[in-house]
Amino acid sequence: MDLLIVGSIAFDSVETPEGKVDDALGGTAVFSSVAASLFSPVNLVAIVGDDFGKENLEFLEARGIDLEGVEQTRGKTFRWACRYLDDMNRRETISTELNVFADFDPRLPERYRMSDYVLLANIQPSLQLKVLDQIKNPKFIACDTIDLWIETAREELEEVLGRSQLLVINDEEARLLTGETQVPRAARRLLKKHGLEIVVVKRGEHGATLFSHEGIFVAPAYPLEEVIDPTGAGDSFAGAMAGKLAEMRDLSLEAMKRAMVYGVVVSSFTVENFSLNRLRRLSSEEIETRYAQIREMTGF
Amino acid sequence: MDLLIVGSIAFDSVETPEGKVDDALGGTAVFSSVAASLFSPVNLVAIVGDDFGKENLEFLEARGIDLEGVEQTRGKTFRWACRYLDDMNRRETISTELNVFADFDPRLPERYRMSDYVLLANIQPSLQLKVLDQIKNPKFIACDTIDLWIETAREELEEVLGRSQLLVINDEEARLLTGETQVPRAARRLLKKHGLEIVVVKRGEHGATLFSHEGIFVAPAYPLEEVIDPTGAGDSFAGAMAGKLAEMRDLSLEAMKRAMVYGVVVSSFTVENFSLNRLRRLSSEEIETRYAQIREMTGF
Repeated sequence: MDLLIVGSIAFDSVETPEGKVDDALGGTAVFSSVAASLFSPVNLVAIVGDDFGKENLEFLEARGIDLEGVEQTRGKTFRWACRYLDDMNRRETISTELNVFADFDPRLPERYRMSDYVLLANIQPSLQLKVLDQIKNPKFIACDTIDLWIETAREELEEVLGRSQLLVINDEEARLLTGETQVPRAARRLLKKHGLEIVVVKRGEHGATLFSHEGIFVAPAYPLEEVIDPTGAGDSFAGAMAGKLAEMRDLSLEAMKRAMVYGVVVSSFTVENFSLNRLRRLSSEEIETRYAQIREMTGF
Repeated sequence: MDLLIVGSIAFDSVETPEGKVDDALGGTAVFSSVAASLFSPVNLVAIVGDDFGKENLEFLEARGIDLEGVEQTRGKTFRWACRYLDDMNRRETISTELNVFADFDPRLPERYRMSDYVLLANIQPSLQLKVLDQIKNPKFIACDTIDLWIETAREELEEVLGRSQLLVINDEEARLLTGETQVPRAARRLLKKHGLEIVVVKRGEHGATLFSHEGIFVAPAYPLEEVIDPTGAGDSFAGAMAGKLAEMRDLSLEAMKRAMVYGVVVSSFTVENFSLNRLRRLSSEEIETRYAQIREMTGF
């Protein structure tokens, strides 16, 4: 029961108060699928240019990520540059070069079309829809998005939401999408309007909140004394959550809660170093230790 | 085992996106002691002017708040005006009139001097120290403060911290007080530097986090679909926590955790209406219901 993930593969140039990297491996599909691969095999749909080195493909493949759905084409890989300010709760995008991404027309390998679990990581909603159209009978679709698509592609985005069971967004995006100031009310509206089963609101250093028709579940963030680079936190959160659900083969509310805590745990490691550096050497034991610590931290 | 609370009594003029009130009952001592009185008798130390109506005194007295320590003097009661912006996470102070507060020299009634539990609600640290100097052998001192005193009265504030067991502050104040960006690191530094037993960081709509030498405990906020006026949230949080501790007569870490959740619960009611309007008609049953809901929301 593999998990299909579609999103971007990028070279990121990131500057934070703790340092900087240039052209480091990144992108929403990469963070999501590497995080998901901690729990489940992944079938990846994305595009790269001819500058995308073999060592990167080998790294992904070695994690159990199937690359038949990754198209390599002439041109440069998608590039993104940003700078984090102050306490890293704010960032400014310096540049976005779509490059090969501009003409991406995702075509799923035949065996990907039977996927039960799908994670539509953040990309243009029209591309998310093109992928969905090729999947025969998915059991569970999770999607992520950002403010850009809420502002510029709302119609397609709403179609994506209408076909998904789980939406993962942050609190600002939930407000923007609904016009509601209070996140609980925004989430309730999203559940109702789009027929979603679950809305998960990512809250950075404050953790995440799961809203369902049956109630609310809150997980704190893992308390970190040092954050090096927040890039990929949200994508690895969604990837780990989707990967854990695929591993458990369980879509009950209790399973969603546990999967969300794994999302919090994995993203807490992501931000401990630049790019994928921390996830590359992350062990199951480290994951389980933090999972248990979060349970311990919330009991009273 | 009564609880002594010192702080300000004020008339607040508050404007939020949901409406406004003029000269409504407020002040750090009022929010704290009304919240504490839900659990424990309170001995109140504060000052009011001759414009402070009998109905206000009667309201406080009817809640089990002893007013022998409240000095009424010629002049006007302390007044504060503010406006909340956007999503109510930011506010601007419009005016602060110290009035009778300017010459406040707190003198404790004899029977207050044996208090076991003390909450130093937010006022000038020099006044907090004057109160502490008059208490013979307190078992437990909790203190609250704001950015103003961190910036203008750091030396006195640090003396207060050195004599307290529990510090209650918000995340911005924790950063300002320590220069640390990450709250967990800031809290650890405060614990160590000032010999505090517990640092509780209030995080508004994200709940509160308790840092002790033994570990971390996180409580989410109660998810509200509507916030009318955030004024007094932090003070009623600290008051409820101190009141619950005084009621339980238990200073174990487990008791602190439970008391903190009561703080979260009571402050969630505070913000549902202007001034003390919601707390005035708050029942034990409503409190226990939300307490149970928060436990439910955090289990996985």
